[in-house]
Amino acid sequence: MTGAESLILTARQAGIEVCFANPGTTEMPLVAALDRVPGVRAVLGLFEGVCTGAADGYGRMTGRPALTLLHLGPGFANGIANLHNARRARTPVVNLIGDQATWHRDHDAPLTSDIESLARPVSGWVRSTRHPGELATDLADAVAAARRPPGCVATLIAPADCQWEEGAGPAPTAAPAPAPRVDADTVARVASRLRGAERPALLLGGAALLEAGLAAAGRVAAACGARLLCETFPARVERGGSRTRVERLPYFPEQARETLSSVDALVLVGAKDPVSFFGYPGQPSELAAADSALPFAAPEHDLVAALEDLAVALDAPARAPAPGAAAALPALPTGSGPVTPDALGAALARLQPEGAIVMDEAATSGLPYFLAADAAPPHTYLALTGGAIGQGLPCATGAAVACPDRKVIAFQADGSGAYTLQSLWTQAREGLDVTTVLCANRAYRILQVELARAGVAEPGPAARSLVDLSSPPLDWVQLAGGLGVPAERVETCEALAPALERALSQPGPHVVEVLL
Amino acid sequence: MTGAESLILTARQAGIEVCFANPGTTEMPLVAALDRVPGVRAVLGLFEGVCTGAADGYGRMTGRPALTLLHLGPGFANGIANLHNARRARTPVVNLIGDQATWHRDHDAPLTSDIESLARPVSGWVRSTRHPGELATDLADAVAAARRPPGCVATLIAPADCQWEEGAGPAPTAAPAPAPRVDADTVARVASRLRGAERPALLLGGAALLEAGLAAAGRVAAACGARLLCETFPARVERGGSRTRVERLPYFPEQARETLSSVDALVLVGAKDPVSFFGYPGQPSELAAADSALPFAAPEHDLVAALEDLAVALDAPARAPAPGAAAALPALPTGSGPVTPDALGAALARLQPEGAIVMDEAATSGLPYFLAADAAPPHTYLALTGGAIGQGLPCATGAAVACPDRKVIAFQADGSGAYTLQSLWTQAREGLDVTTVLCANRAYRILQVELARAGVAEPGPAARSLVDLSSPPLDWVQLAGGLGVPAERVETCEALAPALERALSQPGPHVVEVLL
Repeated sequence: MTGAESLILTARQAGIEVCFANPGTTEMPLVAALDRVPGVRAVLGLFEGVCTGAADGYGRMTGRPALTLLHLGPGFANGIANLHNARRARTPVVNLIGDQATWHRDHDAPLTSDIESLARPVSGWVRSTRHPGELATDLADAVAAARRPPGCVATLIAPADCQWEEGAGPAPTAAPAPAPRVDADTVARVASRLRGAERPALLLGGAALLEAGLAAAGRVAAACGARLLCETFPARVERGGSRTRVERLPYFPEQARETLSSVDALVLVGAKDPVSFFGYPGQPSELAAADSALPFAAPEHDLVAALEDLAVALDAPARAPAPGAAAALPALPTGSGPVTPDALGAALARLQPEGAIVMDEAATSGLPYFLAADAAPPHTYLALTGGAIGQGLPCATGAAVACPDRKVIAFQADGSGAYTLQSLWTQAREGLDVTTVLCANRAYRILQVELARAGVAEPGPAARSLVDLSSPPLDWVQLAGGLGVPAERVETCEALAPALERALSQPGPHVVEVLL
Repeated sequence: MTGAESLILTARQAGIEVCFANPGTTEMPLVAALDRVPGVRAVLGLFEGVCTGAADGYGRMTGRPALTLLHLGPGFANGIANLHNARRARTPVVNLIGDQATWHRDHDAPLTSDIESLARPVSGWVRSTRHPGELATDLADAVAAARRPPGCVATLIAPADCQWEEGAGPAPTAAPAPAPRVDADTVARVASRLRGAERPALLLGGAALLEAGLAAAGRVAAACGARLLCETFPARVERGGSRTRVERLPYFPEQARETLSSVDALVLVGAKDPVSFFGYPGQPSELAAADSALPFAAPEHDLVAALEDLAVALDAPARAPAPGAAAALPALPTGSGPVTPDALGAALARLQPEGAIVMDEAATSGLPYFLAADAAPPHTYLALTGGAIGQGLPCATGAAVACPDRKVIAFQADGSGAYTLQSLWTQAREGLDVTTVLCANRAYRILQVELARAGVAEPGPAARSLVDLSSPPLDWVQLAGGLGVPAERVETCEALAPALERALSQPGPHVVEVLL
């Protein structure tokens, strides 16, 4: 049994079921091993950013890592942006990167480079295997690192000779250790602070935003009147139906500070003390009011237990009360006018089926949707966690691999969609049930806003050209068709709902390009 | 004058004319400065790999660096693969990467990461500016580093506050120091060795493959009977017409060793002692026969002077003799049969106009072309230097920006073309004169070969699926159309020449998808 076969067998025994791959020559023994040791499904991406973003989406939906299989430094580099997002989402991912044979590396062949230096900024764990007999053990360690709460990106560099030489057979794997509990003193201290606060709030992240976490947070809120907030770009939120609702912290720092200005106790539950996405002249980095932030449960803690313990300490009711009636779902847009972000958000919130997974990389076009979807049926919401655009289509692809029985909606801006449009091909190839709602405003609109914020009231021709995508316009119907996905274009409000209904009612991938 | 304006003014005074850009919020002051200090042309790419590959192509054709303007770590990461190729090509490139404001960086906002760790593997020079007053000086140092012979990738990380705060005005710039000469003793020693060799050869790289270098190499060859070889993947070769011809070292190591087995003195001129692209079981890394490699001129030396000095030491004729008659240009393919790589190579070699720039990332589909083009009119040939696929379309884009009066031909495989297809949009937007000949064999053919070389005679379903691109087929006519470039598809030999002629006879970008 080769090192590669030992590795794949170990991965399978560790519960890994999927490998998002774009291999090259140095990964051929691992590719061959995927057949000799069946049980790990290989999913090809035409570009590595598709693979890493898909692994992120898969990991967010299953809580378990997928493998990525990438080719040397440059192939890995193409996947870094979405690994940056996975790192911020604390998603478990295991990267496998082939490297030159150990005895060939020092010859500095054209594709040789320092892979570890590339890997460190996005990886919580990095190792380069030194011996074929250690490849399976290293993989077991990588999986363990990736699964250690709250989850991280683990990167294993596998020299080609360590793959093709005789290996040591499968390595033992262990279930991940449970997340540590928040200690009782901290629970008591935070409960006391919450009782004494006039306008308390919880800032929730990680598992605090899933079903059980929200239920516990709802109890806490009921007991002490705390507002429930989530990070601006949460990895995953369970929303809709009777679930406890959370407010999202606004993106722009002025608004975020305004939101938090009246909060006198901001309890951090799997979320960091919030900071501005970017620094702006004359503005502080911090968003919370002075001395209000109160670390409670760190991302690596058992967040559900922490919230439940806090609920008990606050004598909370045994169950969270049903949320107040959401604003009714907005009406479907009508008329022959152009589609606006409000109309789009309303239509999507109203038409998304129960159980949908909505990956939101719609940027400025998507802002009204989040509020509108408060009243939608139960669904999962995924956000762009690390700001590295080009996450939406890959992440939706991976979510669809993870959850074949659920409808995935890629709610996607055009500028960021163009980064990793190759994802559509993988969706077509695998028959994935993804409806992409492509918001075509033909601009990097957020940068037009940021230019104005930077005091450039009237941008010159260079600045205008660098934030404008209208010349030539991207034709997403042709692009999707070229990648094997049927598509149609919507230009008016009255055409929007029928087009969304057509796409959502059929299985398999579809693109609806919406001109805004 | 802000730091950003000081930087752009310094760049302009250093002779920089183009900036391939995909900026974000942290680069807005530099974007604004491109208008306030005009003279540097901003060219937008929809993906950073387009920008970095274009800067590589631009630098190869002009010998001068372009700027890239990229957004933080993830944006830069998207450009790493093509910077890896630029590093191997020794192309001068200056990357400008915006970073969080210095006082915001430690707050670890979502887009913050360790940019230097990402930059080092592809950069000969890296610096992060610490103070607004130093931004222009740092840029001047970056340009000097990039231009120091033989050229390198220089990366300057520019925190946003260093851009927007008051700067120190333009920094002085200096012309690059001339490349050092090879010393006379070495020239004499190598001349002596060449005189005593029975089957000598020169292995040429860098400027030795441009007009003056080839002329001098031809003189050396005439004096001592040396074969002239070039690296398998040269950054740039001037070919065709009456230029001295060079053989290309084969890709597969068995063939390369066979080519070099009879060479008893392999003089290295701007090329490294050749090694196998990958390590294979039981095969050595080295390709040259034992003790035959003879370092003469390193890449940083004045290669033309070195060859001229060597010619003098060998009492060579004052001018290289005209090359022997090339094999006649092959006939244009005819008949209704499918297009083969031979037919494609013949048609392209015959139809490419004088002065064309041919960027070859056609991989296995392009092998016959290089030989066929021996007899083509004078042209420039660019190869995939670092093996990081997805170079072809971006590099052709940059070459077209550099040489608006020449026809650029992107001779492109489909698998690698799919990595950075967004390049076509920049070609359309800028009206660049690029004809893309897209070789659609609908497979990662080289990996099918490598699987067989790895002993996988009958790949299983996983391996087959990871090297096959036929399901669904990419429709390049739609993809090009979606990006604003007119396209047509060719399926037979008889349709090939007319389609190529149509595309080549019209200005502006065109795509000819050739089914193979």
